[in-house]
Amino acid sequence: MKSLLLVAHGSRRVESNEEVRILASRLAAATAEYFSVSCAFLELAEPSIPDGLRAAIGAGATEVVVLPYFLSAGRHVVSDIPAEVDVVRKERPDVAITLAPYLGAAQELAGVLLKLARS
Amino acid sequence: MKSLLLVAHGSRRVESNEEVRILASRLAAATAEYFSVSCAFLELAEPSIPDGLRAAIGAGATEVVVLPYFLSAGRHVVSDIPAEVDVVRKERPDVAITLAPYLGAAQELAGVLLKLARS
Repeated sequence: MKSLLLVAHGSRRVESNEEVRILASRLAAATAEYFSVSCAFLELAEPSIPDGLRAAIGAGATEVVVLPYFLSAGRHVVSDIPAEVDVVRKERPDVAITLAPYLGAAQELAGVLLKLARS
Repeated sequence: MKSLLLVAHGSRRVESNEEVRILASRLAAATAEYFSVSCAFLELAEPSIPDGLRAAIGAGATEVVVLPYFLSAGRHVVSDIPAEVDVVRKERPDVAITLAPYLGAAQELAGVLLKLARS
């Protein structure tokens, strides 16, 4: 029972958080790999990363992939998100929680950007 | 003579700005569509958006596509970047400066994220 948790920074602007929720729904619709796809926020919006992980596990996940929706490998990606994930790893050592690379690390971004530039 | 200007937020963290410069180089290497590909920053790093546009135009661009490397359609994308672009549009009405959609608007992001989650 594998779940995907998309993690964004979180914004004071409600619409920005809503964009992330819609993206999580699109990911869910695009694949059957995960029993659930949800999102969580590092700050300024709910749920927090630990609460997002707890909700996925409470719903039955035995494996969760945390995917940082961030463009640069700054403090948030390098330290803050791993620290939040570790809180739940300690609570639930029976669940396999893995951290995927952050979005900015994706080689495919170059192609996506060049296509946008043409639109 | 068409140029591409990748516009990022800019960070106090030098490595994050360097990630953007490297990405601009990768875009340049990936396509022959543009006579130059460079980057500029909304704040905290150099060059500014107007200076980046002026440099591209100074090098011979008669057309510049500005591509916002941003994930959400917040104030920066909706107001701040267009305002910076307008400064140079007024200086150089002879140059066609267009604003591409921001990265977060790309439909292809879902596929990129799902692939990252598998890695």
